[in-house]
Amino acid sequence: MGSPVHRVSLGDTWSRREHPDIESERRVRSFNVERLTNILDRGAQNTVLRREVESIIHKNPVFSLKNNYFMTQNERYENALRKRFHIQMIAQRLGWLPDGSELTYAYRALSGDVALSLSGVFMNALRSLGSEEQIAKWSPLCKNFQIITTYAQTELGHGTYLQGLETEATYDTATQEFVIHSPTMTAAKWWSGDMGRSATHALVLAQLICSGARRGMHAFIVPIRSLQDHTPLPGITVGDIGPKMDLENVDNGFLLLDHVRVPRENMLSRFAQVLPDGTYIKLGTAQSNYLGMVVMRVRVLLTGILPVLQKACVIALRYSVIRRQSRLRTRQGEEPRASDVSLRLSKSVFYSAVTGYEPEAKILDYQTQQQKLLPQLAMSYAFHFTAVSLLEFFHRSYDEILSKDFSLLPELHALSTGMKAMMSDLCTHGAEVCRRACGGHGYSKLSGLPSLVTQVTASCTFEGENTVLYLQVARFLVKSYLQAQASPGSTPQKPLPQSVAYLATPVLARCPAQKAADFLCPELYTAAWAHAAARLTGDAVHHLQTLTQSGADQQEAWNQTAVIQVQAAKAHCYYFTVKSFTEALEKLDKEPAIQQVLQRLCDLFALHSILTNSGDFLHDGFLSGAQVDMARKAYLDLLLLIRKDAILLTDAFDFTDQCLNSALGCYDGNVYGRLFQWARESPSNTQVVEWNTL
Amino acid sequence: MGSPVHRVSLGDTWSRREHPDIESERRVRSFNVERLTNILDRGAQNTVLRREVESIIHKNPVFSLKNNYFMTQNERYENALRKRFHIQMIAQRLGWLPDGSELTYAYRALSGDVALSLSGVFMNALRSLGSEEQIAKWSPLCKNFQIITTYAQTELGHGTYLQGLETEATYDTATQEFVIHSPTMTAAKWWSGDMGRSATHALVLAQLICSGARRGMHAFIVPIRSLQDHTPLPGITVGDIGPKMDLENVDNGFLLLDHVRVPRENMLSRFAQVLPDGTYIKLGTAQSNYLGMVVMRVRVLLTGILPVLQKACVIALRYSVIRRQSRLRTRQGEEPRASDVSLRLSKSVFYSAVTGYEPEAKILDYQTQQQKLLPQLAMSYAFHFTAVSLLEFFHRSYDEILSKDFSLLPELHALSTGMKAMMSDLCTHGAEVCRRACGGHGYSKLSGLPSLVTQVTASCTFEGENTVLYLQVARFLVKSYLQAQASPGSTPQKPLPQSVAYLATPVLARCPAQKAADFLCPELYTAAWAHAAARLTGDAVHHLQTLTQSGADQQEAWNQTAVIQVQAAKAHCYYFTVKSFTEALEKLDKEPAIQQVLQRLCDLFALHSILTNSGDFLHDGFLSGAQVDMARKAYLDLLLLIRKDAILLTDAFDFTDQCLNSALGCYDGNVYGRLFQWARESPSNTQVVEWNTL
Repeated sequence: MGSPVHRVSLGDTWSRREHPDIESERRVRSFNVERLTNILDRGAQNTVLRREVESIIHKNPVFSLKNNYFMTQNERYENALRKRFHIQMIAQRLGWLPDGSELTYAYRALSGDVALSLSGVFMNALRSLGSEEQIAKWSPLCKNFQIITTYAQTELGHGTYLQGLETEATYDTATQEFVIHSPTMTAAKWWSGDMGRSATHALVLAQLICSGARRGMHAFIVPIRSLQDHTPLPGITVGDIGPKMDLENVDNGFLLLDHVRVPRENMLSRFAQVLPDGTYIKLGTAQSNYLGMVVMRVRVLLTGILPVLQKACVIALRYSVIRRQSRLRTRQGEEPRASDVSLRLSKSVFYSAVTGYEPEAKILDYQTQQQKLLPQLAMSYAFHFTAVSLLEFFHRSYDEILSKDFSLLPELHALSTGMKAMMSDLCTHGAEVCRRACGGHGYSKLSGLPSLVTQVTASCTFEGENTVLYLQVARFLVKSYLQAQASPGSTPQKPLPQSVAYLATPVLARCPAQKAADFLCPELYTAAWAHAAARLTGDAVHHLQTLTQSGADQQEAWNQTAVIQVQAAKAHCYYFTVKSFTEALEKLDKEPAIQQVLQRLCDLFALHSILTNSGDFLHDGFLSGAQVDMARKAYLDLLLLIRKDAILLTDAFDFTDQCLNSALGCYDGNVYGRLFQWARESPSNTQVVEWNTL
Repeated sequence: MGSPVHRVSLGDTWSRREHPDIESERRVRSFNVERLTNILDRGAQNTVLRREVESIIHKNPVFSLKNNYFMTQNERYENALRKRFHIQMIAQRLGWLPDGSELTYAYRALSGDVALSLSGVFMNALRSLGSEEQIAKWSPLCKNFQIITTYAQTELGHGTYLQGLETEATYDTATQEFVIHSPTMTAAKWWSGDMGRSATHALVLAQLICSGARRGMHAFIVPIRSLQDHTPLPGITVGDIGPKMDLENVDNGFLLLDHVRVPRENMLSRFAQVLPDGTYIKLGTAQSNYLGMVVMRVRVLLTGILPVLQKACVIALRYSVIRRQSRLRTRQGEEPRASDVSLRLSKSVFYSAVTGYEPEAKILDYQTQQQKLLPQLAMSYAFHFTAVSLLEFFHRSYDEILSKDFSLLPELHALSTGMKAMMSDLCTHGAEVCRRACGGHGYSKLSGLPSLVTQVTASCTFEGENTVLYLQVARFLVKSYLQAQASPGSTPQKPLPQSVAYLATPVLARCPAQKAADFLCPELYTAAWAHAAARLTGDAVHHLQTLTQSGADQQEAWNQTAVIQVQAAKAHCYYFTVKSFTEALEKLDKEPAIQQVLQRLCDLFALHSILTNSGDFLHDGFLSGAQVDMARKAYLDLLLLIRKDAILLTDAFDFTDQCLNSALGCYDGNVYGRLFQWARESPSNTQVVEWNTL
C-alpha cells in the first residue's frame, strides 16, 4: 500500500489488504496528503504529537468504541466514566497538562465519548468570572477531580431568556451567606451535564438579591453531593433527566434547591462583589458575564461540531467508491436505456440476453452522488479554516477583555454566535446528507453515521438556540448598518468592525460575470455575499423603520421583521466563511498543489451556497438567470475535478479507523466483510425470546 | 373543559385540568373541530370506529408505549412481539378482518410499534404476483400466522439496481425444483424486516435461470426456519443485522442461501411460469412486477410517513403555547430593548429595577416560531389530501392493472414514486424542524420528538432511495415533454396523462400578481408551479439533446443532467400537491368555515414552497423581486391568521395522548409536571455505579 497517511488500522482480517476500488483512488496524487494533514493540524509537530496520543489511546482496550452501538444508556455512562478515569491516570503518568494539546487529541481519538467533561465548562466560567483568589482555590480541586463540577444555568421552564431564570440567591447579612432557592418546579435547573449522577459541585446561575434589591444573574459555587458518600446534601434534590436522542455518555441532570446556604465567598466576583454588609459593588461591565459563553461557542466549533461533518464525509465518500450500482454507459448490443429503475425493469431485467457481467459503476461517479457529498467535503474545509481564523481572533482579544477592554467584544460575540449557529445547522444537515447518501446501510448504527447525526443535532439547540443566535447577529448588523448610514459617503466617526466593513463601502450593483469561468473568482463571490448581506440588512432596517414610524412598539417591530433579520444574518455568515477561507488560502502560496485543490473546494463551497440561495441574488438583479446558469455550469464542472481527489481529501483529515468506528468508512475500504461480521456480533443474535411468556 | 374533541387522556394527576394557556387557545373556535376530524377520517362513521378501536387498545396495559424510551433493543422487540400476539387475539375475538379498518386504526393507536408487519408486504406481493392457486394456498397460512413471512429483495451489495441482484434460482428439470443460491457474500439478503429472529418463510427475489437462459427477477417462496423448533433449515444462514437508528420493534435480518431447493410451485406465477420441462412462459408485461412496490409506496404515505409529521406538529405547537420566553412589548419605564439576549443582558439583567413579573410571551407569538411550525402544519394537511387523492387514483387503477390493462400504470408509478420521495423528504425535515423548535426539551426522548425523527428518516431510503425515485419521475416528465413537443400546437396523438397535461398547454410567461393579496389564489400558484416544472423539464431536455447531439452516450448524458432532472421532478411534485389540495378543498363547499381555514393552509403551503424555492421563479422572470416581496407579505400575514387556529388544527388530527407518548404534547398542556415526573421515573435514577470497578 505504501500510503504515507497515518493509520491505526483495526487490525482485523480485512485490514491486511486495501480494497482495489479504494486503492485505485489513491494511486494518482495531485498533492501531498501528509502536508495537507500538517496544515489542518496547524503544524507538522502537532501531527506527530496527535499520532503519538492516538497510539497510546488505541493501544488500550479500555478506550475501544467497538461495542458502543450495542450498549444501553447505563452501560454508555459507566464506560464513559471508566474512560475518564483511565485518561486521567495516563495524563498524570505522562504529565499531560489539563489544557494541553495531548488531552485535546485524546478526546478527539475517543470522539469525545468520555464522562465528566463539564469540569472544562466550570473552569472556563471560573476563569472568566472568578477572582484570582477564587481561581486559586477551586481550580486545583476541579482539575484533579477532587470535586466533580457542573454548570447549572438552564431551568426546566427557562432557557434563552436569562432574565426569566427563577433561581434566587438572597444574601443574608446575619450569617454572611447566600440562600440559594428554587421557588417553583419550573425553576429546577435542567440539562446540566454530569449533574444527573456524578457532580459534587454545581456552578449555579441565580438572580442575586441583596439589601432588598435584585441585581441580576450571578454565579455561585454550590456543593450538591457529599464528598463522603455521594448522597445529595440537605436541601438538594438532584437526578438524571432520562433518555436523550444521543450523548448517553453524559448524565444530564436536574437540580432543585431548597434554601441551600453557601458562604459569601462562593459568589464568583471578578466583575461584581457583595460586601459583608450586603453592599453590592460592580467591578466590570455587564457584557463580561457572557464571555464564558463566547469561549464555549468558539471551542465547540473545532472540537465538537466540525469533526462530525468531517467524519461523515470520510465514511460516505469511502463507501461511495466501493459501492457499485447500475451502469453509466450503454452496453454493446443493448438498447439504450436510462439509469433509473423503471426503464431498466421494463427493458432489461426480464429479457436480459447478457451472459457475463462487467462491473457496475462506483456510485461516486453519479452526478447526484457528487452533488450530495462534495459540497459537504468543501464545507468541511471551509468551516475548518473559518473556525481557525475565529479562534485566532478570539485569542487576540481574550486577554484584552479579561483586563477589561471590551472594544472587540461585540464583534467577537457576533462572529462566534453566528458561526456557532451556521456551523451547527449546516454540519447537522451535511451529516444527514452523508448518512442518506449511503442508502439503507446509512441507517445501520454500524455505519457510524446515525450517531454522528444524533450527536451533532444537539449543537443546534445547546449553547444558545440557533434562531436566537441569528437574531443576535442581526442586531449587530442593524447597529453597524445604522452606524454606517449615519455618515454616508464620509468616513464614519468610529470605524466599523472589520467583518462588517462591507456595510459602509458601496457594493457592486450587478455581478460582472460573463461566462462560467468568471465565477471561479474569490473576489467575485465574496462580493456577491457581501452584496446580499448588505441588501438584506438594508431591507430589514427599512422594514423596522417603516413599522416604528407607523407607531409600532420597537420590540413588536423587531418581531415582525424577524424572518428577514435571520436571512440577513445567514448571508453575513456565508460572507464571513467565504472570506475567511479565501484569506487562509492566500497564505498557502508556498504549497501551490495544495493551494490549488483547496481553491477548488473554496470555489465549490461558494458556488454551492450561491446556487442554494439563488433567490437572494436574483431578487434585485445582482445575478441574472443566465448568470445563475453559468454559475451552475462552473459548479458542475468543479464536481468532476474534485471527485478525482475526493478520497485523498478525506484521508487528509487523518481520522483513525477506531475513532471513525464505522463498518462502512475504514481506510482499507473492506465494507461488506466488516459490516457482515459486526452484524453477526450483535447481541440480538444471541438473545432468545421465550415465546410462551408473550 | 367541555371539549368536543375525543381524548383518551393519560389519566395522570395533571390530566384533570387543562393548562390555562392551552385552554385559552381553544376558547374561540372559528370552525367545528369535530367536523374537520370527520373529514380527515373520510367519514364520521370512521371517526366513531377509530375511537372504539383506540379505547380497546388503550384500555389494555400490554399496549402501553409509556416505557418505550427506557427499553433496550431486545426489550423493544420482545414487546413488539407481545403486542402483535395480543392484537391478533383481539382481532380474532372481535372478528376484525386482516384488511379491515379496525386493524389499521389499531396500528395507528400503537404508532406502528408492533412486530411481524412484513406479513402485509408478503401478502401484497402474493396478491400482485401470485396465481389464484398460490394465493389460495399461502394467504390463509400467512394471515393466521401459521407461518411468519418476510420479503427478501435487497442484498448486502445491491439495492436499487435490481438487475444487479446476485441471488440465483436455477430450475432443475430432474426434480422440478428451483435451486436458490447466494453465490457471494454480497448476495446475502439484507434488511428484510422480521427476518432477523422471527420469519419462517421468505419471499426471495432471485434471478431465474431455466433451460440455460437468464430470465430476470422472479419471486420464490422459501421456507427458512423450522416450524417445529424455529431453527434455521439446512442450507440457510440467517440472523439479525444489529442496531439501527430506530425501528427497534423490527428484527431486520440477513439471509444466505446455500443451494436451497424449493418446489416448482413456489415461484409466483401470475405473470410468468416455468413448465415442468423448464419452458419459460411470459404471461404479462414486465411492468407488472413492480406493482407490488407501487402498492407499498402508496400505503406507506398515509400510514407510515404522514402521521409522523402530524404528531410532531401537535407536540411542538402545543408546547409552543405553554412555553413562554422573553417579552414582546417594551415595558413602562424601561429603555427600549431588543428581544435578543445580548442587548437584554447588557441593558436589563444587571440593572433590573423591576420588582414584579408580568408573564413572558408564548413562544408561538414569535414570528420565527410561526415561520418554523405553521408551514409544517400546512404541509401536514396538504400531504393528507394529496395522499388521499393518490390512494383513490390507485384504487381506480389497481383492478385494471391486475386484469392486465397497464395504461394507467406509468402515471400511477410516477406519482407514487414522486410523492413517496417528496413526502418522506419533507416530513423528515419537518419533524426535525418541530423537534428543534422545542429547544433543549426536543432533544429529550421523553418529548417524543427524537424517535419521530429517527423513525421517519428511514423512509427516505426504504422502498426506493429518494434520488433514484426523483429520477424516475424525471424520466416520465421527459418522455411526456417529448410527446407533447412531437405535436406542437395541435392535439397530441395520444393525450398526455392528466397530471402532466400542463407540459402541452402554453403556460403563463409572467406572473400577473400586482399586490400581496393576488397571491392568495390557487389558480395563480398552481400555474406558477406548472410553469416552473415545465421550464425545468424543458431545460433538462435541452441539455440532454445538446449532449447527445455532441456525441455523448445516452446514459452518460442522462447522468450529466441528473441534478437538473431532480429539480424538475421536485417542481412537478409541488405542482401535484398544490393542485390536489386545491381540488380537495373545492369539494368542501358545504363546510364554508372549514373550507376557509383549510384554504389558508393551502395558500400558506403554496407560498412557503414558492418562497423557499424563489430562485426557480425569479430565474426566467416569471416572478420579479417585487412580486417575491408581495408573496412574502401575503405569507407573513397568513402566519398571523393561522396562528389563531393552530391548536384547534392540531386537535383535529385527534391523536390520543397515549399514541403521542410525549411529555410535551399532551392535550391538557401540562408540560413541566409531566416532564419532571417522567424524568424521575428514568431507570438512570436507580442504577448505581460501582466506582471501584472502574
